[in-house]
Amino acid sequence: MTPYQVRSKVWLEFQGLPFLSGGRYQLLATVASAGSISAAAKNLGISYRKAWTQLEAMEENAPFLLLVRRSGGKGGGETQLTEQALELLGKFHKLNCEVQFAVDHYFSVIFSEQEG
Amino acid sequence: MTPYQVRSKVWLEFQGLPFLSGGRYQLLATVASAGSISAAAKNLGISYRKAWTQLEAMEENAPFLLLVRRSGGKGGGETQLTEQALELLGKFHKLNCEVQFAVDHYFSVIFSEQEG
Repeated sequence: MTPYQVRSKVWLEFQGLPFLSGGRYQLLATVASAGSISAAAKNLGISYRKAWTQLEAMEENAPFLLLVRRSGGKGGGETQLTEQALELLGKFHKLNCEVQFAVDHYFSVIFSEQEG
Repeated sequence: MTPYQVRSKVWLEFQGLPFLSGGRYQLLATVASAGSISAAAKNLGISYRKAWTQLEAMEENAPFLLLVRRSGGKGGGETQLTEQALELLGKFHKLNCEVQFAVDHYFSVIFSEQEG
């Protein structure tokens, strides 16, 4: 049995800059399910400011609109993801699942051949 | 066509600590081909101290001996990789090639379905 654990990371760049990573995926997905940036920040245990800053950085370097904000109302502002952002998250999730599967598969095949 | 570029990274951990990454792979492979730490550092354009520190960190957390040092001689000390270290590099390289291929493949399949 191999003594190692394999780890991997996949991310997307847009115009040469980091655009979508696992962390940003999680933040966007949480905004989508929680319905607002403040609720998402709370769910993830990070500050509103941190969540907002990360989303701002993504939006500045995005090829399309990611978020739709509706201010006011009873529970404060709402934030939803655009259709395109939701579609992108779906694809990124799919990519991650396939790659994770491939990494585990090849690691197991290559590293179980013999110790090393 | 998708506007994104996909990037990925694979690394091995041993006992919960980072053990072999692309950078360390390159350093070890260069030591193997150059025959000494100082020649490898020169080839990679890093300081001897930096190369030595990285190798030291790897060796402290390795499940087997990585390097064999022979001091003295005309051109100063020689450093060679152990059989096990060479075998590990070969496997890591193979793993990276397979994963890179899988990442490119799935990215192209998933992200060319439609824009997003």
